[in-house]
Amino acid sequence: MFRNFKLVPRVIFGRGCFSQLDEILSPQRTTLKDWVVFVTDDVFTGTALASRIPLHDNDLLLYVNVDDEPKTQYVDQLTQQVKTARPTLPCAVVGMGGGATMDLAKAISLMLTNPGSSTEYQGWDLIKHPAVYHAAVPTLSGTGAEVSRTTVLTGPEKKLGLNSDYTVFDQVVLDPELTAGVPKDQYFYTGMDCYIHCIESLAGTYLNEFSKAYGEKSLDLCRQVFLENHPDAADKLMMASFFGGMSIAYSQVGACHALSYGLSFLLGIHHGVGCCIAFDALEEYYPDGVKEFRVMMEKTGVDIPRQVTKDLDDAQMNTMIDVALGLAPLWENCLGKDWQTIMTRDKARSLFLKM
Amino acid sequence: MFRNFKLVPRVIFGRGCFSQLDEILSPQRTTLKDWVVFVTDDVFTGTALASRIPLHDNDLLLYVNVDDEPKTQYVDQLTQQVKTARPTLPCAVVGMGGGATMDLAKAISLMLTNPGSSTEYQGWDLIKHPAVYHAAVPTLSGTGAEVSRTTVLTGPEKKLGLNSDYTVFDQVVLDPELTAGVPKDQYFYTGMDCYIHCIESLAGTYLNEFSKAYGEKSLDLCRQVFLENHPDAADKLMMASFFGGMSIAYSQVGACHALSYGLSFLLGIHHGVGCCIAFDALEEYYPDGVKEFRVMMEKTGVDIPRQVTKDLDDAQMNTMIDVALGLAPLWENCLGKDWQTIMTRDKARSLFLKM
Repeated sequence: MFRNFKLVPRVIFGRGCFSQLDEILSPQRTTLKDWVVFVTDDVFTGTALASRIPLHDNDLLLYVNVDDEPKTQYVDQLTQQVKTARPTLPCAVVGMGGGATMDLAKAISLMLTNPGSSTEYQGWDLIKHPAVYHAAVPTLSGTGAEVSRTTVLTGPEKKLGLNSDYTVFDQVVLDPELTAGVPKDQYFYTGMDCYIHCIESLAGTYLNEFSKAYGEKSLDLCRQVFLENHPDAADKLMMASFFGGMSIAYSQVGACHALSYGLSFLLGIHHGVGCCIAFDALEEYYPDGVKEFRVMMEKTGVDIPRQVTKDLDDAQMNTMIDVALGLAPLWENCLGKDWQTIMTRDKARSLFLKM
Repeated sequence: MFRNFKLVPRVIFGRGCFSQLDEILSPQRTTLKDWVVFVTDDVFTGTALASRIPLHDNDLLLYVNVDDEPKTQYVDQLTQQVKTARPTLPCAVVGMGGGATMDLAKAISLMLTNPGSSTEYQGWDLIKHPAVYHAAVPTLSGTGAEVSRTTVLTGPEKKLGLNSDYTVFDQVVLDPELTAGVPKDQYFYTGMDCYIHCIESLAGTYLNEFSKAYGEKSLDLCRQVFLENHPDAADKLMMASFFGGMSIAYSQVGACHALSYGLSFLLGIHHGVGCCIAFDALEEYYPDGVKEFRVMMEKTGVDIPRQVTKDLDDAQMNTMIDVALGLAPLWENCLGKDWQTIMTRDKARSLFLKM
């Protein structure tokens, strides 16, 4: 059985195409009462980009804070805020920002039409009703959130996405100009999320030619960006992110993502940073990838946080191991069906201790 | 202004995934009266593949003949046949075959809901009503018809597609097993349609990073297939075709496709063959591409028809030149805004005389 992969049905790509957003949204505005909510990273408060958002009188500009990774409680609160803002549901939810902001926009669009708390939908295909029309305007490239069928949320019990076909955006606006001015560290960590994702999926056991074609080209683009510092780097990294997301259709991430989920859950480390910290400790499993990653890190002039696990007690370490080893498909993709005999708790602990 | 590109919203890829077709179509069958028409290349009459088509009692298996390239008259006749077969319209049209069959399926699904003759819709965005749900099952890789927003038809006056967002398939089923057993010549000509298309778009003036990423990977896959004879060639050529089609979003073909339209219109030469004949005469414009094409031709053991224009009279030659030079965007993509000063009628004639 193969997955019948749901693609984002509309994509616009080009420098300056953000200016077409109003026109793109206009078919959604069928009556005068129709309104749009722009879920926007609050780093854009008062910026030139914020002033370019095509707000109509009745629209809602909803700034969100993503200093922490998205939590189910925050999603529930934002959804309530949108529901009570106007007598009707919005006709569109637009997410403007990086992976966390896009995930919040996806989650809000789903929770506007599905009752209860978002914690009830953490898992696979638990969403029952189609979301409100939702569009993405990425301002940071790498996570692939613009094309994925998930929105990764941290709940009281687990870090797990709302995975469903309804999660997929209805529209993506890819304007490389919007990624200018990202701080160097964030640019690197988010780009490496894409690079590592490709290394893991291409080395995995789940691959087929669909995912391979997308993954290989994504990797090629990452190299042009982080090794060659290509003049069209912003355009290329945006496409690398898109291709990286598409490659997940018939592949899976691996050991690095599994371990990084442990770091994020326990220490609140952001996803991209956590991936870099974990990947640097995985030379044994991805020797060429880790070597190349270190060259990219040096060229970009970024250094990752070190010794982040040194003050953890046994209970904390065990929680982190529980989270990481709970992600069976990732380990199976990396190590095969017998992964449990290879990735023991002791082995996982020794890897965490290197980070 | 950038085009807001309409993608095929559902894609399934995998060896044997054709077996999932019944399940894939089932959401379209909402009442007992709902029926599906399977537009199938008549070369499959009586074959094992034909017996695997998931026909329900009320369905229609419509064999089509694509010895000639699709004509508007044929589309109108087939549409009428489908309309009169049952009291209601079908809930789905499934095209099974190569580019010509897929184009017929697209055209029928459009003409079932748009009045008049298909000749009235040859052009850009002339289609007024959404098509009947339509799905593609390619059995031949290369044309990119499975992802394109056109269906190329020869009418009484012109060879021109029904270009519209409604033309795009709702579902594509990519099963590389189905391309086994294609005759060597056809395999080569259709594969070269993809290869040449990529060479033209990557060398063109219209390119951006979206189309470049898709085009480069498509070319890479073509090389693995036709130069390295890779063991996964069927899977790779199917992805090359898909990527080649996607790359057209923000690019355009060039001199070769323009000239080949002349050959097809006047001599009825099939698209893939026409592209190969024309490309072989275009060393001046695509030197590396033509060189590599000849190596691929030798490795595959195919030789193209030669001296196809030698018996044409002046009037015929002029018609061919009219058709080719009428395709302004293709020439502009290849030669820039001043293309008319470069590609004169005499120059076009001299190129046709080489074929």
